[in-house]
Amino acid sequence: MKNIIIASTSTIHGSGYLDYILDDLTILFKGIKDILFIPYARPSGISHDEYTKIVNTAFSKIDKTATGIHTYENPIEAIKKAKAIFIGGGNTFVLTNQLYKNDLIHTLQAVVKNGTPYLGTSAGSNICGLTINTTNDMPIVYPPSFKALGFVPFNINPHYLDPNKSSKHMGETRETRIKEFHNFNTQPVIGIREGSWLHVKDYSIILKGDLTARVFEYNKVPYEVKPGTELNQLK
Amino acid sequence: MKNIIIASTSTIHGSGYLDYILDDLTILFKGIKDILFIPYARPSGISHDEYTKIVNTAFSKIDKTATGIHTYENPIEAIKKAKAIFIGGGNTFVLTNQLYKNDLIHTLQAVVKNGTPYLGTSAGSNICGLTINTTNDMPIVYPPSFKALGFVPFNINPHYLDPNKSSKHMGETRETRIKEFHNFNTQPVIGIREGSWLHVKDYSIILKGDLTARVFEYNKVPYEVKPGTELNQLK
Repeated sequence: MKNIIIASTSTIHGSGYLDYILDDLTILFKGIKDILFIPYARPSGISHDEYTKIVNTAFSKIDKTATGIHTYENPIEAIKKAKAIFIGGGNTFVLTNQLYKNDLIHTLQAVVKNGTPYLGTSAGSNICGLTINTTNDMPIVYPPSFKALGFVPFNINPHYLDPNKSSKHMGETRETRIKEFHNFNTQPVIGIREGSWLHVKDYSIILKGDLTARVFEYNKVPYEVKPGTELNQLK
Repeated sequence: MKNIIIASTSTIHGSGYLDYILDDLTILFKGIKDILFIPYARPSGISHDEYTKIVNTAFSKIDKTATGIHTYENPIEAIKKAKAIFIGGGNTFVLTNQLYKNDLIHTLQAVVKNGTPYLGTSAGSNICGLTINTTNDMPIVYPPSFKALGFVPFNINPHYLDPNKSSKHMGETRETRIKEFHNFNTQPVIGIREGSWLHVKDYSIILKGDLTARVFEYNKVPYEVKPGTELNQLK
């Protein structure tokens, strides 16, 4: 019954917030007017109200509205009653911490498994994987656990970046970081480039957008998969 | 009694491991032949033995040797008896996790406070701050705490990078990430560029190397400090 979009980013360079994916959101949110928005990741530290306003500006282009979960007295009940859910980007540690603090993990898992459409971008996509161990974000708060929602049986690396061969910077490349992850963990990791997303529909997981994605499996050489590839065999 | 070098990186572009800082290490390790090396951060997942070998190759240029802490039966005793200590780079989460697992935090704090010379590079520098909340690394393991050694009364951001204005990537700049940190934490953060280091000597903390560093104080506009600047008033 799952119906999920796991997007690398909310925004691609030179374009407005969510613009590149609005057509697909019309399909994901078909027949639904109001979407429950979870602004906990707080990009650049903006308030939940300010963040919800940005989402509403984008959603108005496809005749949808967003209501922030922070405006409900009982966030668990808000999730149970939601027709659709969007968790936006920002900081994955802040987001995860807040989901645990409000005891929302199990409720989110239950409703999305039962068919409530879900959109995640960036941090909101990271948490769709098994754990947040492959986030790119700075660990500015200490969440009670790195375990995430597990909507897919692998980990997500959003905003995936290829090594910049002309760089003189000595910090690790993204590929090196994910290889280091596999010294301590065995689940696959999908590096999703900006402009790509995964569409999860029941038992099918398909790469969408124009770009290839990079798959890192334990003890295997990383490889690229093309748009349209079914990824449900990965685990 | 403190005598500490907190270096942004072990290696600058186009140069060998530790080469740029060997002259200063000769002074830091004056009169000391063998240095206790803590290889727990495991860059690229290499073994503790392999990592110690790399350090010994560099140290041989200044007639020093490194012995890996993993070769001692009792790591706490090894730290207590060490004439000098070097913690190398790699992954800050892996390093922190291993320090907690082996119960080494308090012993490290005690011996370094009492004058055992300490060299940290990259991850080994991150842990010299109050917490590891400003690391750039991927959180590939979950340590029991983000609290670090607190050799200095602020946080460190090694491998500090200026925003790349020509980039089309939508991930956060380093400056944005540190500003987000200050939405949840109040201690200052020093962004140390590759090739720079802090020299902590008793109560003095001085920026060394050729480059400026970027200081982020809570509720202030970030600013640059020149090499030679005393930073001991920051807290």
